[in-house]
Amino acid sequence: MSPKALDYDSLNENVKKCQYAVRGELYLRASELQKEGKKIIFTNVGNPHALGQKPLTFPRQVIALCQSPFLLDDPNVELMFPADAIERAKHYLAMTSGGLGAYSDSRGLPGIRKEIAEFIERRDGYPSDPELIFLTDGASKGVMQILNVIIRGQNDGILVPVPQYPLYSATISLLGGSLVPYYLDESANWGLDMNNLRDAVQQAAFRGVTVRAMVIINPGNPTGQCLSIANLKEIVQFCIRENIVLMADEVYQQNIYQDERPFISARKVLFDMGPQMSKQLQLVSFHTVSKGYWGECGQRGGYYEMTNIPPETVDEIYKVASISLSPNVPAQIFVSHRTFSGLMVNPPKPGDISYLKFEQESKGILESLRKRARMMTDGFNSCRNVVCNFTEGAMYSFPQIRLPPKAIEAAKKAGKHPDVFYCLKLLEATGISTVPGSGFGQKEGVFHLRTTILPAEEDMLAIMSSFKKFNEEFMAQYEDHQGYSRLCT
Amino acid sequence: MSPKALDYDSLNENVKKCQYAVRGELYLRASELQKEGKKIIFTNVGNPHALGQKPLTFPRQVIALCQSPFLLDDPNVELMFPADAIERAKHYLAMTSGGLGAYSDSRGLPGIRKEIAEFIERRDGYPSDPELIFLTDGASKGVMQILNVIIRGQNDGILVPVPQYPLYSATISLLGGSLVPYYLDESANWGLDMNNLRDAVQQAAFRGVTVRAMVIINPGNPTGQCLSIANLKEIVQFCIRENIVLMADEVYQQNIYQDERPFISARKVLFDMGPQMSKQLQLVSFHTVSKGYWGECGQRGGYYEMTNIPPETVDEIYKVASISLSPNVPAQIFVSHRTFSGLMVNPPKPGDISYLKFEQESKGILESLRKRARMMTDGFNSCRNVVCNFTEGAMYSFPQIRLPPKAIEAAKKAGKHPDVFYCLKLLEATGISTVPGSGFGQKEGVFHLRTTILPAEEDMLAIMSSFKKFNEEFMAQYEDHQGYSRLCT
Repeated sequence: MSPKALDYDSLNENVKKCQYAVRGELYLRASELQKEGKKIIFTNVGNPHALGQKPLTFPRQVIALCQSPFLLDDPNVELMFPADAIERAKHYLAMTSGGLGAYSDSRGLPGIRKEIAEFIERRDGYPSDPELIFLTDGASKGVMQILNVIIRGQNDGILVPVPQYPLYSATISLLGGSLVPYYLDESANWGLDMNNLRDAVQQAAFRGVTVRAMVIINPGNPTGQCLSIANLKEIVQFCIRENIVLMADEVYQQNIYQDERPFISARKVLFDMGPQMSKQLQLVSFHTVSKGYWGECGQRGGYYEMTNIPPETVDEIYKVASISLSPNVPAQIFVSHRTFSGLMVNPPKPGDISYLKFEQESKGILESLRKRARMMTDGFNSCRNVVCNFTEGAMYSFPQIRLPPKAIEAAKKAGKHPDVFYCLKLLEATGISTVPGSGFGQKEGVFHLRTTILPAEEDMLAIMSSFKKFNEEFMAQYEDHQGYSRLCT
Repeated sequence: MSPKALDYDSLNENVKKCQYAVRGELYLRASELQKEGKKIIFTNVGNPHALGQKPLTFPRQVIALCQSPFLLDDPNVELMFPADAIERAKHYLAMTSGGLGAYSDSRGLPGIRKEIAEFIERRDGYPSDPELIFLTDGASKGVMQILNVIIRGQNDGILVPVPQYPLYSATISLLGGSLVPYYLDESANWGLDMNNLRDAVQQAAFRGVTVRAMVIINPGNPTGQCLSIANLKEIVQFCIRENIVLMADEVYQQNIYQDERPFISARKVLFDMGPQMSKQLQLVSFHTVSKGYWGECGQRGGYYEMTNIPPETVDEIYKVASISLSPNVPAQIFVSHRTFSGLMVNPPKPGDISYLKFEQESKGILESLRKRARMMTDGFNSCRNVVCNFTEGAMYSFPQIRLPPKAIEAAKKAGKHPDVFYCLKLLEATGISTVPGSGFGQKEGVFHLRTTILPAEEDMLAIMSSFKKFNEEFMAQYEDHQGYSRLCT
C-alpha cells in the first residue's frame, strides 16, 4: 500500500526542511530533564514572564475589565480598580462591536490602528496612515504574512543577516524560497558591512536567485547591536538601488541598554531623506507586545506598518488576513496600550492615579535589564575561551565559545554539531537551557550560544558563576596541555 | 525599472488566486454603507457577540482573574467574584509557567491539553492522548497547519464539500494545491451521496490529481445539515479504502437544533468500528471556542486532535507550530473551559455557586438559537422563489433563490454574478449583509445566499419581513408576466 498523506515520507518537503532551533533539540532535552525533576533555567527564548517578570499592573487591570464588562456595573468596582483603568477599559470597549468576544476587522480594530498610527507619528515625527497598519497574533505571524506574499518559488531570495533569528530561515524554507545570507561582523560589534551585502546579492544572482526583500533586525537578535543612523541610511539607499523590499524587524525598539546609539526606526531614516527618496522604498516594519518592558508574549499581539505599498497589494494582504478572520482581540488592546505608553505620552500620564505605579514598574524593568545586560556580558568575558560583545539592545547575549580541537573531535564522535555538544553539556551540568549558535547561523568553524538576559537580577551572579564553573571544567577537559585555545584568544 | 516585489504584478500568484467571500465584495460594500451611516445587520459571518449575544459570565470572570492575578490577593475579591471562579482561576494559573504573559509550549499548555483529552473521552467513550492534541489561535489556523503539511503541489488534491466554507478553497489555493469538489445534494437535505464522492476522486485522477485528504464539515457550513451515523461510516470506510486523510471540521458540534440527528464525532464512528478498522484511518478533528453557545470568536481559541498520525509527523507539525512560538494563552483557558462545560460535566457543576447562572445563560442561548433556526427557515420558505432546508445545526441558513431569467440578464449587464447582484440589492434595500452562494460553491445555474441565524430573537421577525418585502419587489421587477419563475418552483 502506498504511504498515507500524513506518513512522514509523503509530507510536504518544505515542512521537513525547515529548522527552528529556539525550540529544537536543546529545548526538547531541557523539557525532558524538567519532567525528570531537574531545575531548568529556560534562557532559550525571550519569555520574560516565564523567568519571573511580573506583568505591568495597569494594562492588566484594563484587560480584566474589558474581559468582564459586567464588572463596570458592579458597585464595588472602584474598590478593586483605579478610576483611570475603568475609564480606559470603557474607551477600548467602545472601539469594539460586541466586546472582546467578537471578531474584529481582519486588519484589527480601526480605533486601535488609529492609536498605533499616532504612536508612530510621535516616535518618528512623520504622519502614519491607520489603513496601512495591520494587527497580527504576534509579530511572527506578520512576518509570515508578508513573506508569503513576496515569495513565489526557489528563485526568490530574501537577504537575511547571519547570525539571524530563525523565524526567517524557517519561514523562507516553509514557503519554498531561498535565504540569501549576509554576514554581520563580530569583530566590529556585529556591524553590517555594505560590501558583504553587495557580494551576497551578486552571488545569489549567480545562482539564478533574485533578491526580492531584505530583513534587518534592529536591535539585533541574537546579536544585540543597535544599528547606527549612518548604517540605516546605507541600507535604505541600497534597497532603493537594488529595488528590494525592506522588512524592518523592530520588535526590540524599547529594549535599549546604552545611550550612545538610541533606537531609530528605518521609517524615520527613510523619511529624513526627503520627499523624493522617501517614496522609493517599499518598507514593512514590525512591532509586538511580547518584548519591551511589557514582555506579554503569551497574549500574542503585534502589528506591521506598510510604507509605499500599492493599494492593490494592501488589498491582497487584507484578503489573505481575512481567511483566519481576525487577530485575537484582547491582544489588540495590549498593542494599543503599549504604543501609547511606549512613549510615556498617554495613559497613565502624570497626575493620573496609576501614573506613579506604572512609571515605577516599567522603569524598574528597563533599568534592571540594563544591569543584567552588563552583568552577563562581563560574566561571559571573564570566562576562559569566551568572548562576547555587549548587548546594546534586545534581550540576548551571544558569546563566542572558542572550542578546543579536542572538543570539536569529541562532538564529531558523538554525532553532534560542536556548539550543540557544548550546549547539551552545559544544560546537563547546570540546567541552563541555551540555543547553539548554529541555530542562528555563524561563520564556518566559529561557535556561539545564545542566552537571554532575562533571569532575575538576583539570580544572575549565581547563574554566571555556575556557567563559569562548567566552562572551566569543559575547557580543562578538552584543552591540550600546550594551552592551544588560550593562545588563540 | 522592473516592478518591485510588493507591486501587484509581482506578487505570489497563489495569493492572488485565493478567494474569501465571507469578507469579500459584499462585506466591503456593507462596511462602506455603515461608514456612511446606514444601519447594517452583519449576518455575513458567524460572530454572535457582534449581534448582541452576551458572553457567559463564569468563564469571563475566570479569565479576568487570570489576567489580573494580583486581584486574588485583594481583600475585596469575594465581593466581586464568586468563590468557584476564584478557585478556577487559581487552577488555570497553576498550569502556566509565568501566567498569561508567558509563551506556552507551542502545542498549548500541557494541563489544558489533558483537560481536552478528558472531554473527548467523556464525549466519545474512548480515551484520547493529550500529546496528540494541539491548541491553535482559532480552528482556522489549525486547518491551515494541517493542509500545509499535506499539500506539496498542484497534483495534491483535497476533497471538499460543495457548498463549502471558503476557508478550505482559500487555503488550498494559497498552498498551491487542488480542490476536488464533491457536491452535496440539496434535494436530499444536503446529504452526501457516496457515488458523487467516488466520481470526484476518479475525475481528479484523470486530471493527474491524487486525492490526499477529505474535508467534512459536520454540522454543515453553510448548509446546516447533521451527518447521520450511516453516512459517517460510509465516509470513514471510503477514506480507509482510498487511503486518504479525513479532516473533520466539527466546530459546530454544540450547535444542534433538532433531536433526531445528534452530533456524533467522526472519531467515535471510527472507534465504534472496532480495534482493527480504527487503526487504519488518519484523522484530524477540529474544534473551537468561537462557536457553540460560547461564541467567543474574538478570543481566537481552538484545537485539533490527531488520530493515527505517526509520531515523526507529529514532530514535524510541532516544529512548524514552534515557529510562531505559541497560540495565545488566554484563549487556551477558554478552550479548556469550553470543553469542560461543553458536556456540563464539570465546573460550574450542580451545587457550585455559579451553576445556576451558567446553566441559565448557556441553555438560554441554545434554546433561542433553536427558535431562530426555525423562524429563519420558515421565513425564507414563505418567500416567493425561495426554498430553504432546515438548519439542523451550525449557525447558518442557506436558502436557494430562484432568480428569474431577466434578473440573471440584468446581473450580466451589471458585470456581476447573479447571486452577488441579488445580495447587493438586498444589502442596499435592507442593510442585511449576506454572502452570495457563489462564495461557497453551488451547482451551475442555481443560486443561494448564506445568512447567519444570529440576529437577536426579538429582531428576527422584522428582519425576515424586511427580507420578504425586498424579495417580493425584486421578483416583481424581474419576473415576466407569464409568471415563469413561479411555475418553476
